[in-house]
Amino acid sequence: VKKNTIKDIGEFGLIARIRRRYARSSDLALCGIGDDAASLRSPPRGHPTLVTTDILVEDVHFTRSHTTPYLLGIKSLAVNLSDIAAMGGIPRFFLLSLGVPQELSLAFIDRFYDGVAKLAETYDVLLVGGDLTAAPSFTINGVLIGDCPPNQVVYRKGAQPGDTVFVTGPVGDSALGLEILRQRGLKPRDFNAYGEATGRDKELLRLIRHHLAPEPPVLKGRKIAELRCATAMIDISDGLMADLGHIMEESHVGASVRVDQIPRSEAFQKWASLYHPQPLDLALGGGEDYQLLFTAPGKALQQAIADGRESDFPFFPIGKITPHSGKLSLITEDDRPYSPSCHGYDHFRPPAGGFHA
Amino acid sequence: VKKNTIKDIGEFGLIARIRRRYARSSDLALCGIGDDAASLRSPPRGHPTLVTTDILVEDVHFTRSHTTPYLLGIKSLAVNLSDIAAMGGIPRFFLLSLGVPQELSLAFIDRFYDGVAKLAETYDVLLVGGDLTAAPSFTINGVLIGDCPPNQVVYRKGAQPGDTVFVTGPVGDSALGLEILRQRGLKPRDFNAYGEATGRDKELLRLIRHHLAPEPPVLKGRKIAELRCATAMIDISDGLMADLGHIMEESHVGASVRVDQIPRSEAFQKWASLYHPQPLDLALGGGEDYQLLFTAPGKALQQAIADGRESDFPFFPIGKITPHSGKLSLITEDDRPYSPSCHGYDHFRPPAGGFHA
Repeated sequence: VKKNTIKDIGEFGLIARIRRRYARSSDLALCGIGDDAASLRSPPRGHPTLVTTDILVEDVHFTRSHTTPYLLGIKSLAVNLSDIAAMGGIPRFFLLSLGVPQELSLAFIDRFYDGVAKLAETYDVLLVGGDLTAAPSFTINGVLIGDCPPNQVVYRKGAQPGDTVFVTGPVGDSALGLEILRQRGLKPRDFNAYGEATGRDKELLRLIRHHLAPEPPVLKGRKIAELRCATAMIDISDGLMADLGHIMEESHVGASVRVDQIPRSEAFQKWASLYHPQPLDLALGGGEDYQLLFTAPGKALQQAIADGRESDFPFFPIGKITPHSGKLSLITEDDRPYSPSCHGYDHFRPPAGGFHA
Repeated sequence: VKKNTIKDIGEFGLIARIRRRYARSSDLALCGIGDDAASLRSPPRGHPTLVTTDILVEDVHFTRSHTTPYLLGIKSLAVNLSDIAAMGGIPRFFLLSLGVPQELSLAFIDRFYDGVAKLAETYDVLLVGGDLTAAPSFTINGVLIGDCPPNQVVYRKGAQPGDTVFVTGPVGDSALGLEILRQRGLKPRDFNAYGEATGRDKELLRLIRHHLAPEPPVLKGRKIAELRCATAMIDISDGLMADLGHIMEESHVGASVRVDQIPRSEAFQKWASLYHPQPLDLALGGGEDYQLLFTAPGKALQQAIADGRESDFPFFPIGKITPHSGKLSLITEDDRPYSPSCHGYDHFRPPAGGFHA
C-alpha cells in the first residue's frame, strides 16, 4: 500500500520520518528528536540564551492556495530567525510544532520540511524537536533558541533622544508582494517544488516571494551587534511605524521620520503605484519586510563603520529619536507633516482579507 | 466602555495586560515579555539546556465546555513540566503562544493565565514570552526551558536487559477521569474559578481534575536523576504500554510487565469498573497520567534509596527489560499472557470522540 497521507503512517510514523530525513548530528545537540525534551549544549560562559516563538495559523497568516509548502517551510523558520537577529543573536536550535489537518498529503509535509531544512542549513541551525497533532487548520509553532556574546544583546528599550533611526534595507516589498498576490493569485507554474520562480514576470514573482518566504536579517543583526553602538533594535514584522512605535514605547521616547528617506527597492518604485493608491503607506504600514530597525548615536555608528572599514551593509538613516514620549512625527521632504492611511497590523483587529505573520 | 473581549483591547493591549499581571522580575531573565526574543541567563557551566514544546488544540485535546479556563491553564504548563521532569531536569522559563478565537472573553483569558501563573509559581518557573494571534480554534503552544546538572540527564535510550521497570505512582486515573467526564459532563458547580472542586462527588471530581489538570512529576524526576541509577525514563502521556514502547524502541530492547503489579489508586479500584468494561486497559492504554516510567538495575536503585534513607517517593516495580527488541509481554498474576483491547494514543488515528494531549 502506498502511503500518501499522514493518517496512513500515524503520529509516530511521521515523527520517525522527520527524524530520519531532517535531524543532523552535532555535538551541540546531546539529544534531539526522539525524547521528552531536547538536551542541548548550553552557550559559552556569559552568553545569554535567546528564545523566541511564533505561531502561524492557516487562513490567518497564510492560505495554502496562495503559497507552496516549501515557501511556507522557509517562512516558518525565517520569522523566528528574524526575531533572534533583532536581538543581535546567533541562532542555534529550532523546534517545530505542527497541527495538521488529517487529509494533508505526506508530499505537502515533505516539501514543507524541505523548506525548513534548507533555511536551517543556510544558517547552521539544528532541528531538535517539536510536537505533532491533528488540527482543523494547519498550525505552525516555531521555537528558535540562540545565544549572543556578552554585552552584545540589543533590546528595544535603550533608544535615547538624539539617536539616529536606521533601517537595514528597503521596506514595502512584502506588503506590495501581498497586494500583487491578492490581485493576481498564484499560478501553478509560478514556483517549483524548491521555491524557485519558474513563471514569467520575474520581478513580480520576486516581490511575491519576498512576502511568502522572507530573507531573515541574521547577518545584519550580528553585524550591528558587533559594532556595539546600537541602543535599540527590532525587526520590521508589524510595519515600520508600528515597530518604531514598539521601540518608542519600551524606550519612553518619541521619533521623527523623514518619509522620503525611507529606502524602497527599484521594483517597488516601478510597480507599487499600479497595485496600491498610496505606495508610501505600503512602506510605512505594511509588515513582514524583516529588515531591522535600529537606533544609534549617528556619529558613533559612522565611526564604528569607518573603524571596521565596513561597507557591505549600508544602513539607511530615516529619522531621529526625540524626547516626546509616544509621539511619532512623519515629515515630508518639504518639511510638512504626513498622515498615512494605516498604522500597522493587529491580529485581533485585522483589515478585511488580511494575512499576516 | 467596558472592555470584555480581546477585540476590544487588541493584540498589543493583550500583551501589555499579560505582562503587567504575570511577568515577574528575576535576575535569571535579563529580558522577558516585550522584546523580539527573551534574553535569559544561561545555565551553570556544564549543565545542558533542556527544551520541550507541546501543542494543545481545541476539540482535539480539550473542549471548552468540558474544562475550565483555570484548569486548562494549569494543564498547558503541566504537560511541559512533565516532559522536563522525564529528563530529570529543573524547569526555569516558560513561553506561551496562543491562537485565540476573536469572540473569546477577556475573563476567560485572565482565568487561563491565572492557572498558568499558579503552577508556574509552584515550580518557580518564569513566564518570559510567547506569541498571540487570532485563530479559529483555541490553540495553545507551550515552550518550557530548563537545565540539569552534569551527568544527571536521563534519556529514553539507555535501558538494558535485566533492568527493572518502575513507575512512580498509580496509573489509569486520568483515563478514568476522562471516561467519567464523558459520561456525566461537567456541571457549573463542579469547579470554581480557581480550580477547586466545589461540587458533590469529591472522589469523582478528583479523578476528573487529575485528567483536566494533572500534577507534573517534577520532584519525582529530580529525585530519580539525583539517585543516578536510572538507565532510561519517560513520562506516561501516551499510555503505559505506548510509552514503555518508546523506551524499548530507543533502547533496542523488549520488556515483560506483570499487569497485576501496576499500581492503581483506591479511587480507581472503587470506580473504574462502573465506567469501563476493562479497567485494567484504562491503566495500560490510557494516557496523560504524567507519572514517570523508568528503568534501573533493581539492586542499584534499592541501594541508592537505602543510602539516602529515602522513603518519600515509593517506586513501583512492574516488570523487567528483556533482550527481545521490540517485544512487549504482558503477564497476569498466574503467569498467563494478557491481551489488552487498546494500545495507546495516536493523534492521527484517534478512537471515536477521543481527547488527548
